Amino acid sequence: MSLTSFIEVAKDSHFPIQNLPYGIFSTNEKPEPRVGTAIGDQILDLSEVAKAGLFQGVDEAVKVFSQSTLNDFMELGRPVWKNVRAQLQKLLSANESQLRDNQALRAKAFVPQSAAKLYLPAQIGDYTDFYCSREHATNVGIMFRGKDNALQPNWLHIPVGYHGRASSVVVSGTDIVRPSGQRITPADKSQPIFAPSAKLDIELEVGWFVGKGNKLGSRIEVDDAKDHIFGMVIMNDWSARDIQAWEYVPLGPFLGKNFGTTISPWIVTMDALEPFLVNGPSQASPEPLPYLKETKPSAYDIKLEVQLKPTESSKYQTVATSNLKHMYWSVTQQLAHHTVNGCNMRAGDMCGTGTISGPNESEYGSFLELTWNGTKKLTLEDGVERMFLQDGDEINLTGYCDSAEGYRVGFGDCQGKILPCPYQ
Amino acid sequence: MSLTSFIEVAKDSHFPIQNLPYGIFSTNEKPEPRVGTAIGDQILDLSEVAKAGLFQGVDEAVKVFSQSTLNDFMELGRPVWKNVRAQLQKLLSANESQLRDNQALRAKAFVPQSAAKLYLPAQIGDYTDFYCSREHATNVGIMFRGKDNALQPNWLHIPVGYHGRASSVVVSGTDIVRPSGQRITPADKSQPIFAPSAKLDIELEVGWFVGKGNKLGSRIEVDDAKDHIFGMVIMNDWSARDIQAWEYVPLGPFLGKNFGTTISPWIVTMDALEPFLVNGPSQASPEPLPYLKETKPSAYDIKLEVQLKPTESSKYQTVATSNLKHMYWSVTQQLAHHTVNGCNMRAGDMCGTGTISGPNESEYGSFLELTWNGTKKLTLEDGVERMFLQDGDEINLTGYCDSAEGYRVGFGDCQGKILPCPYQ
Repeated sequence: MSLTSFIEVAKDSHFPIQNLPYGIFSTNEKPEPRVGTAIGDQILDLSEVAKAGLFQGVDEAVKVFSQSTLNDFMELGRPVWKNVRAQLQKLLSANESQLRDNQALRAKAFVPQSAAKLYLPAQIGDYTDFYCSREHATNVGIMFRGKDNALQPNWLHIPVGYHGRASSVVVSGTDIVRPSGQRITPADKSQPIFAPSAKLDIELEVGWFVGKGNKLGSRIEVDDAKDHIFGMVIMNDWSARDIQAWEYVPLGPFLGKNFGTTISPWIVTMDALEPFLVNGPSQASPEPLPYLKETKPSAYDIKLEVQLKPTESSKYQTVATSNLKHMYWSVTQQLAHHTVNGCNMRAGDMCGTGTISGPNESEYGSFLELTWNGTKKLTLEDGVERMFLQDGDEINLTGYCDSAEGYRVGFGDCQGKILPCPYQ
Repeated sequence: MSLTSFIEVAKDSHFPIQNLPYGIFSTNEKPEPRVGTAIGDQILDLSEVAKAGLFQGVDEAVKVFSQSTLNDFMELGRPVWKNVRAQLQKLLSANESQLRDNQALRAKAFVPQSAAKLYLPAQIGDYTDFYCSREHATNVGIMFRGKDNALQPNWLHIPVGYHGRASSVVVSGTDIVRPSGQRITPADKSQPIFAPSAKLDIELEVGWFVGKGNKLGSRIEVDDAKDHIFGMVIMNDWSARDIQAWEYVPLGPFLGKNFGTTISPWIVTMDALEPFLVNGPSQASPEPLPYLKETKPSAYDIKLEVQLKPTESSKYQTVATSNLKHMYWSVTQQLAHHTVNGCNMRAGDMCGTGTISGPNESEYGSFLELTWNGTKKLTLEDGVERMFLQDGDEINLTGYCDSAEGYRVGFGDCQGKILPCPYQ
């Protein structure tokens, strides 16, 4: 029988004792943001647990869990993360009395999630976005270059990535203002107009956080990479396809992307995800260069879901499902590639996987693919139709792993609503 | 007669009383990094000036000038920057006794530059690199696409930019490790090899720092943009052309750039540069969209220089000169464009102009252009030849404005040495 907590956890909860993700929260009563872990519908305040002296052998516990970001905890490295996780699982387990029977501490240390405000979990020094789903890259390639040249020549050799904007990464629940920008119209492909984006889209991604980094000029080897990754979140890399299409040659996406990137607030640790490791897609042809070769399973079986609440409707509808296991280049390959030239990573840096599309049409992780660049309508319940997002639309992305033992390790919500552009 | 200081300033010094750039420094005696301004060959310690109560009406002076970055001072906004600058010019002027005759304070507050260690002047939240020199974009375009399609269709409409890596921005004097990476060879254009870069290059750029930022979803109008720019530095955006060429389609440069970007340590303020405003290149055909239109001069007459000390030699030789006034899109247009979609800027964010090449061959700001992608050798004194940089080579970039009044407002050095790749 699997481990259970004295805190009640619903069967479909994303936050059983096997998960214990880290986040930053505050309450009305105590407005200082601090570190917590989610358990069922509660948050355990780790600053209180630390102050009560319950973390043994973690000298930095009071300090790092009282911070308003996870960066200092991330910096401590995987042995400390594992130690803290083991102690938390023990403290929260049904048959351990230390916390369970300490009513005074429980009153201070547990906060209902519904009463908490959640923040970005880390100060993100740099944000990199990869492009690692073969299905997504192929779909985009077919749309813009035709079937015969769908994948670029470098794609099967390089986990293609580019730098994104860290300042506009926001936590779930933050509204997104529709961006304006230059775009060309079918009528005149050389003289751009300036207007609010008419092709506002989502990208269903997973984000991963660097824990311990590396010095400038040094590398993180692919076999060591997992020890440098703190955990994962669900990420929506909002995209204005019309702005992007006009601007991106030759230096890549810029204003089509940097107006907002939403992440779920809880970082699910690599240790919690370990049971869901699976083999990824074959990399036999072509084989990767030696610095990218992996010998162990490095894909994760994480179910992903895109939910839309159109402005005309009052409820979310699922418009796509996908799975991180489809991703061609693993997160450990992404990190090894990112540092192979000596680029330094810092605790709190975030990387996105790129849009995770699956092989079937119902598994496409963007409206660009779902509506084939606006050439076919997505028909929803109540007769609502969409090509791209309209003002007032709300998007929620979510993800979870189902264990054979019956528990679910999930990421919670990654939600955002589109506000109209406030400018003429 | 122009203003002079009681501190002796050599005629060709970059740091007369008309400049007063800000930087972060420490000394052996007092190892805490803090804010200073350069005057002649000295640094005036602004934390000491503030503690002595000499800044009137700037309540935050003691706090912001004791910080190890300029971010908090930047955040205060241009009226405060102007106030502090005016007070500093007064305190340092030859005919003002307050500081001049206070020997005890002078002993504490002045430090020879030769005795100081200099740091990155700000914590750079995000770093964006533009591509705003028409000459550079045209040269690169001719090399890779031929003369008839040199400029991309968007180039005359958009100040093209992309996100760079903030973590690997380093201060002048930091060694740069030659990056390794994937590249293709003429023998096989589909199967990459992995090796140290054989086309390691520089980019002669100017960097500019955001002072006061804007909120996500809001804009900075082009006419207000100068009030949001704190100042400028000289920047070397080291580039591995072979890695870049293989990786950059379709999402832009990544590992070919993010192994290092060097900046000069002193931020020269927009107020110090104001006398050197000139009209930039004509933007009559095509006219920019309204949000990019400027009515006042917005180019800066800043002379730029590339100096190389080859590993075989003991002295620097000038290999190119250029001028920021050649740049097509102004820094204020760059900032207006960057935020027109609602992207938020934060104090301390840095943007690069892109390589600043002039119209003549001696004015090219990269070895890529100077050697036409390695097809013609650059011959230096002593018979030394170069296509791209070799291990042990040192590069210094510098820049300055010459005033009709006889003083020079300069940026100091932006220097770096290439170390061999330490890996096999």
